[in-house]
Amino acid sequence: MKAITLNSAQQSKLLLTDVQTRSLLPGEVRVLIKAAALNHRDEWCRQGLYPNIKDGVILGSDGAGIVSEIGEGVDYELLQKEVIINPALNWGDNQKVQGSSFEILGMPRNGTLAESVIVPADRLYSKPAHLTWEEAAALPLAGLTAYRAVTYQGNIQPGENLLVTGFGGGVAQFAVQFGLALGANVSTSSSSPEKLEKAKALGVSTTFNYLDHNWISKANEDTNGFDLIIDGAVGDTLNHLIQVAKPGGKIVFYGATLGNPTKLEARKIFWNQLKIMGTTMGSDLDFKNMLSFVSEKKLQPVIDQVFRFDQAEEAFDRMRDGKQMGKIVLVP
Amino acid sequence: MKAITLNSAQQSKLLLTDVQTRSLLPGEVRVLIKAAALNHRDEWCRQGLYPNIKDGVILGSDGAGIVSEIGEGVDYELLQKEVIINPALNWGDNQKVQGSSFEILGMPRNGTLAESVIVPADRLYSKPAHLTWEEAAALPLAGLTAYRAVTYQGNIQPGENLLVTGFGGGVAQFAVQFGLALGANVSTSSSSPEKLEKAKALGVSTTFNYLDHNWISKANEDTNGFDLIIDGAVGDTLNHLIQVAKPGGKIVFYGATLGNPTKLEARKIFWNQLKIMGTTMGSDLDFKNMLSFVSEKKLQPVIDQVFRFDQAEEAFDRMRDGKQMGKIVLVP
Repeated sequence: MKAITLNSAQQSKLLLTDVQTRSLLPGEVRVLIKAAALNHRDEWCRQGLYPNIKDGVILGSDGAGIVSEIGEGVDYELLQKEVIINPALNWGDNQKVQGSSFEILGMPRNGTLAESVIVPADRLYSKPAHLTWEEAAALPLAGLTAYRAVTYQGNIQPGENLLVTGFGGGVAQFAVQFGLALGANVSTSSSSPEKLEKAKALGVSTTFNYLDHNWISKANEDTNGFDLIIDGAVGDTLNHLIQVAKPGGKIVFYGATLGNPTKLEARKIFWNQLKIMGTTMGSDLDFKNMLSFVSEKKLQPVIDQVFRFDQAEEAFDRMRDGKQMGKIVLVP
Repeated sequence: MKAITLNSAQQSKLLLTDVQTRSLLPGEVRVLIKAAALNHRDEWCRQGLYPNIKDGVILGSDGAGIVSEIGEGVDYELLQKEVIINPALNWGDNQKVQGSSFEILGMPRNGTLAESVIVPADRLYSKPAHLTWEEAAALPLAGLTAYRAVTYQGNIQPGENLLVTGFGGGVAQFAVQFGLALGANVSTSSSSPEKLEKAKALGVSTTFNYLDHNWISKANEDTNGFDLIIDGAVGDTLNHLIQVAKPGGKIVFYGATLGNPTKLEARKIFWNQLKIMGTTMGSDLDFKNMLSFVSEKKLQPVIDQVFRFDQAEEAFDRMRDGKQMGKIVLVP
């Protein structure tokens, strides 16, 4: 079958090639991929920024498709089912945090950027009926991360003020959509006026361009501070976020693309009783709740662009350059 | 009446002097002080480290005594009652955080280091029957701060691992006592072997001398990490605490005597889903719950030493030098 593999001999580090598939182990299923989607994780694998990166592995965490084969012990009813794949493996039974054998589909285990993927049967969930294949594929990793950040970690309530930084990224967009659907007053920030226009079209009340050196005082004037801030950048912007958090508020971050902050305003944190919380992907319960919520509210992921597998390099470069506005989808 | 006031003309910045008391406003009560206690806050007021510090103000947040006079509208039954004073004024109705008019007894409002103090009647609670006057006076500010940190913020559960840093300070000791009474496995750290011995005598299972450069690996070996860490120092030790926090764990800090950290391990925080949370004093609900808990468990504050008012300088110097092991109490 055709698959997009990591290949350090290529200039693009990617190789669309024929991969020999293997037979199923007990409890496993084969899913024919209808659509897959990119995450920053795929691009970071390409750049070699993770430990244990192996050449030849099929990339991709997000996928949706049809079950074509089932292994020993798997329920026959799964055959031919339209499914969406939960890319979080072996979370464990602790809702607070993943266990030590937690793994994400797509590296080191073969991922979804292929004509088919093998996963344990318990990673499959019914595709929400209102979503196209492309939309379903866009949901899993970023949707799960955003859902856990906004609900389990952030516990946002209707009428509360939510700031989502870095609109444009997948997690940020889902966090905005989920926040709106939960009745929060949602603000978002970006350095791109076009992305902020798009956010307003989704229903975001207030937007901030963080290149504007006044954005902090503007944010405090316009909103009176945020009950919850969802961020994936950290770096020294963390101290800006502390300045726009409402007393008693939370800052939940799911990544640190800007690295570590070089200081932290400790006094403001304890006096204002702020919470700075890390979050990663989500548990099986989070995934199930996320799908129910998306189905109930008929939420549709924002798709940036759909690429064919033979356009993988272009798709990855678009992710690397941060040009996307919504999820980047690939179809076999 | 005799009272210990802030006086910048003195070398000690303290003056035991006669202060003219005023008459009561509606809703106020006068409490004859049987015992008062020191907090770091008092020493910081002496050092001028707060904004809005005024000469002539009577210091002291902690006190217990007998109601000698009641203002208009106050329940007659309060007269002659043995009470403990909640030094947190105007918290407001949000359990998450104090409101903007929050104030702490002792500066700028006249405090408890006096023969009597005037407070709103709603700041009074019955003195727990099992406590001496000195013990009751030792409880309010530090007990409230520790109780909120361990319960409302930290939500410690029986069998969980709790680390309290800086044993010797008032909040740290109450956090240790409350943690033990709640069934946690309590560890504590200090640079003083004597203080760590004292902690073991209280029932602490594991102690660490943080001057020992191996304490981090030792702590991880001995305990497998902490579900909750209560800290009042921050500074660069925060990154040490992040290293001994269990995945999914919480670090709750109530002060930052070491100032801001010069960096923060962001990746470890999000991947391990840690929570770094600030806390301050506590709400009226926290105070009420703390008193019920102390009474139910018959907990007794550790008293370092009892001084007379005319030994105030010695008492404050002891606090400044960090020599105390338990609360420093003053009696008129």
